[in-house]
Amino acid sequence: MTLTAAPPSPANFVNRVFFGYQNTAALKAALELDVFTAIGSGTLDVGALAAKLDVSPRGIAALCDSLVVMGFLAKSSAGYALTPDAAAFLDRKSPACIAGIHEFLASPELVAMIFQDPAGAVRRGGAPGLANIAPDNPIWIRFARSMGPFMALDAKLVADHASDPPPRRVLDIAASHGLFGLAFGTRFPDCHVTGLDWGAVVAVARENADAAGMGDRYDTIVGSAFDVDWGKGYDLVLLPNFLHHFDRAGCMNILHLTRAALAPQGRVAIVEWLPNEDRVSPPVPALFTMTMLLTTPSGTTYTGPELSAMLTEAKFDQPDIIPLLPTPLTLVLARAA
Amino acid sequence: MTLTAAPPSPANFVNRVFFGYQNTAALKAALELDVFTAIGSGTLDVGALAAKLDVSPRGIAALCDSLVVMGFLAKSSAGYALTPDAAAFLDRKSPACIAGIHEFLASPELVAMIFQDPAGAVRRGGAPGLANIAPDNPIWIRFARSMGPFMALDAKLVADHASDPPPRRVLDIAASHGLFGLAFGTRFPDCHVTGLDWGAVVAVARENADAAGMGDRYDTIVGSAFDVDWGKGYDLVLLPNFLHHFDRAGCMNILHLTRAALAPQGRVAIVEWLPNEDRVSPPVPALFTMTMLLTTPSGTTYTGPELSAMLTEAKFDQPDIIPLLPTPLTLVLARAA
Repeated sequence: MTLTAAPPSPANFVNRVFFGYQNTAALKAALELDVFTAIGSGTLDVGALAAKLDVSPRGIAALCDSLVVMGFLAKSSAGYALTPDAAAFLDRKSPACIAGIHEFLASPELVAMIFQDPAGAVRRGGAPGLANIAPDNPIWIRFARSMGPFMALDAKLVADHASDPPPRRVLDIAASHGLFGLAFGTRFPDCHVTGLDWGAVVAVARENADAAGMGDRYDTIVGSAFDVDWGKGYDLVLLPNFLHHFDRAGCMNILHLTRAALAPQGRVAIVEWLPNEDRVSPPVPALFTMTMLLTTPSGTTYTGPELSAMLTEAKFDQPDIIPLLPTPLTLVLARAA
Repeated sequence: MTLTAAPPSPANFVNRVFFGYQNTAALKAALELDVFTAIGSGTLDVGALAAKLDVSPRGIAALCDSLVVMGFLAKSSAGYALTPDAAAFLDRKSPACIAGIHEFLASPELVAMIFQDPAGAVRRGGAPGLANIAPDNPIWIRFARSMGPFMALDAKLVADHASDPPPRRVLDIAASHGLFGLAFGTRFPDCHVTGLDWGAVVAVARENADAAGMGDRYDTIVGSAFDVDWGKGYDLVLLPNFLHHFDRAGCMNILHLTRAALAPQGRVAIVEWLPNEDRVSPPVPALFTMTMLLTTPSGTTYTGPELSAMLTEAKFDQPDIIPLLPTPLTLVLARAA
């Protein structure tokens, strides 16, 4: 990612310092106006789009041209058409649509938090961040509702990799939308799933369980994973997108609780953003370290060897480390030793 | 810029919608802490950097790793070093340093404005934007102070291209930092420059004129270019980064005033972000159209043919259109017909 081939240029700096956030705002506008669904499988010119969306022609032209620069639209003399990326992920008629993730990732709360005092977070090694938000703050409900589609593929992939033998009792820690647990529940008719999360949030998991027709095999534990009784005898404990909120001591606490809740031969499935040991690749997990610095008191990303060492310390076997391609997440799967 | 070579991936969307603004915030932190100057021409590891900057090792590691991903630092077993881009433009010891531009481009005011209601700006075809800010609002002073270094190279290039014959009387409209006018004043000892801008802003141009040792050949006109008397008989009128704030009627108004203020054979030098006629290339001028939509009531970018037509209507000869490479700006230079 270093720029050694070309002579020095201010372009990257200008793009990052200004167009970085402007492009986020432009995408927000496009998603709020549902431009990608309006274009769909056709090609629309400025006049037709403006009429269909009831917006200013001048406004939609500026927006669509910026979306062309960003790679989400293609422009021809006939108008604007979706690129394959936009058709797959931003058109609400696509089964893989993740358009809603901006409702969390570009929410006013998260933008304000990231821009609050980034230099201060570097100075202090963390930020009050989301931890200061009350457990039942609506932002976590928004997270559960908007991020679900983004995690649907990862949930399916985790179930692909952790289904031999099929688990009969699954505990989903910080279940949120509940999709990771539901991926097992919907695959195996005799699988019982327990979702643990704050009350207002786990209600979203319950909704999704009911919608998936497995409401009678889904129950919930309400509260913080650090405080409540997890129960015992699970075949599989899921820790999806959870450990990165904590420092090593916090993670060890969770892994000990996990170990204690498992049946013999039970397994833990950690889903995380794993940087390589250089901590600067792959780009998305590497940048996610900064996300945790700016939004949590002591959260961070962990490498495969770091997670392996923690699992060994918590009395697990050496884990299998399985990239959940094509998503940026990784599954770390370990059996109780 | 379309993504046709690879299978659809959510990566570009996730990067734009989230890491777009996070990376801006990370760069802000790095510039506020002056990380690039601290590293300078050497290589520093996390411990040394944390000690030198008096910041958390955990914090500076996360920040520097994100700067590696962005291409501003290189990482080795010895620590972090500047990439050529960072050495040239972000180390305050470099003569080409433009580190200060984040003080305007990533200022809280501008971030808030861009995120205010981007969908609403598309619907209405514009935004109240900066036009609603009182003329002497400190943000324009911050613009003048922080953007000067970024425009210094363009100012030199304009003087390179508009010095035959050397102008003796130059009028710099919306002078701001004044650098475009000063580039002529410092090059030609008998050149007199007049800077026009709001009072608190043109004071920055005056400071810069004094610092350049040409205070006795610099005077100012205070007020809005649409309202005040420009004077007459100029050899050269500069319109640097000005026309994009207005619609075509506003631009024509300014071009008529320009024509009336020129001596016979006098010239106008327009410095602008010129998209190609496709309006989606080059990337920076193309994205700047969206900037104007989000920050002005009716501003936009203009193509070369659009500016040529306006100049003809205002009784100028056909202009020379000169890209100010390696910067993203273009000079449009025309003689009074």
